[in-house]
Order: sequence, then structure tokens, then C-alpha cells
Amino acid sequence: MKFAVILSGSGVFDGAEIHEATMTLYAIAKNGGTYQVFAPSIEQAHVINHITGEKMQETRNVLVESARIARGKANDLSEFKADNYDALIFPGGFGVAKNLSDFAFKGPACEINSEVENAVKAMAEQNKPIGALCIAPVIIAKILDKAEVTIGTEPQMVSAIEKMGGTHKETTHGEVIKDEKYNLYTTPCYMLDATIVDIADGAMNIVKAMME
Amino acid sequence: MKFAVILSGSGVFDGAEIHEATMTLYAIAKNGGTYQVFAPSIEQAHVINHITGEKMQETRNVLVESARIARGKANDLSEFKADNYDALIFPGGFGVAKNLSDFAFKGPACEINSEVENAVKAMAEQNKPIGALCIAPVIIAKILDKAEVTIGTEPQMVSAIEKMGGTHKETTHGEVIKDEKYNLYTTPCYMLDATIVDIADGAMNIVKAMME
Repeated sequence: MKFAVILSGSGVFDGAEIHEATMTLYAIAKNGGTYQVFAPSIEQAHVINHITGEKMQETRNVLVESARIARGKANDLSEFKADNYDALIFPGGFGVAKNLSDFAFKGPACEINSEVENAVKAMAEQNKPIGALCIAPVIIAKILDKAEVTIGTEPQMVSAIEKMGGTHKETTHGEVIKDEKYNLYTTPCYMLDATIVDIADGAMNIVKAMME
Repeated sequence: MKFAVILSGSGVFDGAEIHEATMTLYAIAKNGGTYQVFAPSIEQAHVINHITGEKMQETRNVLVESARIARGKANDLSEFKADNYDALIFPGGFGVAKNLSDFAFKGPACEINSEVENAVKAMAEQNKPIGALCIAPVIIAKILDKAEVTIGTEPQMVSAIEKMGGTHKETTHGEVIKDEKYNLYTTPCYMLDATIVDIADGAMNIVKAMME
């Protein structure tokens, strides 16, 4: 089973969450699947110093930074073709809300990067499994009408999902919610107060569910 | 058991290898240990575009970039005290040979970052377990006289280790070499042509060996 993995940079505060991304790649390989990493070739919304939490005076490209997690093997999301993949998955991190969309700045009124939106819709049309970890279910709820997802328990995010027309299900560590109508799988990961062991469990559980 | 994990940036070609670093943190937590990430607060030797392999015209700080892997919780290596930790471990990545030392540029005649050297020697003096993955055993062989290590099979690296006075043992995926006299553990990881599953196995095996 061939997964496309969409990353949003490299680092939780301005890109893809590194543990979630790595554990997703691991879970795919461990269960006998293969993967190709994709990211949009756009500028990050900003660059955050991960120690101080402050903005840095520089610019970075989402695809170029995502390639750090993929050991150089990341493709431009503009080249993604749903026909070539059996499944699509989004690890989390603020990059999902800052680079793949502007949810972090506009909330439920956000816009989604058009390449991300096209990829999700193309996979949904073919009824191929779509997975989203952590904060990534939020953008799926914006793209797919009346999607049923989880981001754990966080009230503000739950409210945002509902404002966008989605349905939220509460979950704890490692739990996966399946929305049958879209063949869509979501799990909370670091949206809960989680350890790296919880993240490994969540990634393993969602990938296994998608492969069944 | 409390581990200090020394990182060298974030990204295989100019920093810490992200899968090895993440899998090391996971293996520690999974086996009931705790960890604190450290890195020297110095400029990276250079910044590599991980897609093209070319140098980028920018500078990045090793500690600030390492914090991406640690979700912000990385300490300056100058503050490391051996008394406060039970074990010390180095994931790999070219950052070990470019930032923690200049081995990538000078080979066996390399110099080691003094904070790194002090940390390794202080732990060795207390006979606390020291671990090194991938290319990291090379700098241990420079620091600890006549250390017995593995980097897998790569002839040029084996020769460099021997020139620095070390002994090399050939290994394959997931194998760990123990040097009794230093309580030192090494494993090859991505120094071999490995998958992310091999990396998870290697990290799990070395951490378990260190905890025994």
C-alpha cells in the first residue's frame, strides 16, 4: 500500500510536528507499506525560534524544510496524482494551520492551500483512505463537507470544527475515529497532553486502520 | 534512568538525523526512561538544501535547530553536568561530523567541540553508559583512547576510526557493540543502507543495552 504523506515544514511551531511525521513514516514502513513525502513549494507563514517561541527574521520554504524529515526525498505537492497512491495522510504540527491553510490566523473562515484541497478531494472522490493526526483534522473538516473527526478534547478547536460544518468526537491517546462516508481516519496525538510514546501509538493505530 | 541526548541540529545533511533522533527519544521513553536534549549554541558549519544538496546562503544555530526535534525543550550543552544524568547518547547525522566536530572536513585530524568532549569524558570518568548511533561513534573514537566501536562496514570510516586509535567491529542492522572498559555502546543505523524500521530497531536495541 502506497502512502502519500503531506508535510508542512519541519518543527512543531512553524511546520510539521517531527515526532508525528517520523512515527507516521515508521508506522507505514513497519506495516509493509511504502511512502512518498509531499509538500507545497511555498514560503512558510513565518519562522519560529523553537526555544524562545519568537519570530525569526528569515524566510524558509515549506517543501525544502519538509525534505529534512524525508532525508531529501520530498516531492512538490503540485505534482501529486491521486491515481498513483493508495492512501493520503497528514501528520500534525502548527504548519498545517499556518502553511497548508491560514487556520491559525483566521479560524473557521480560513482558506486551504489549493494543492492540499485538490489532493484531499481527489482521494475522497476515489474513496481512498485519508488520515489526519493532531491538528490536521481541522483542515479536513474545512475541505470535506460534514466530516466526522477528532482532535481530542480541546473546546476551542471542537467549536471551530463545528462552525465549519464538521462533527467532533472526543478521544483520548491512541484512539482513531473513522468517518465511513469519506473513508477518513483521525487521531489526536499532540493535541492532547501526550508523550512521544502516545504519538507512536496514535500513528501506528491510524496507519493500521487505514490499511485494513 | 535519565538520559542526556546530544543533538547536532535538525536534518541529516547539516544536523542531527531526524529519524535517529526521534527513535532514540522514543526508545528512552518506551523503556521507562526520561530525557533532556542538549546541543551546543554555535553556528552550524553550513545550511544544506535537503532537496538539491546545495549550500544555502544563511546561517543557523545548532541549539535553536535541535530544539525543533525536542519540541522547544533543548538546553545549552555548556550547562550539562554529568552528575545530573545516568546516561549520554548521540544520534547521528552529518551534524555530528560538521557541528559537533570538524571530522567531515579534516577526517582523523579533526577537532571535537570542547563541550562535547567534556561531556563524554565526564560521563566516562563516572563509568556511566555512553551511546552513539550512525556516524557518532567516530567522534567517540577520537575522544576516548582505544575505544571499540561500530559504524557498520564503510571502509573509509573504518580506516579513519583505526587511524584515531580505535578498534572497529563490523555490524549489520540493529546490532550493538559494547566496549566494556568505557561502558560504551554503538550501532550503525543509517551508516548502512537502512530503512526507518532498521533505525527504530537500532535505537531500541542500543537504549535497552544501555539500560541493562
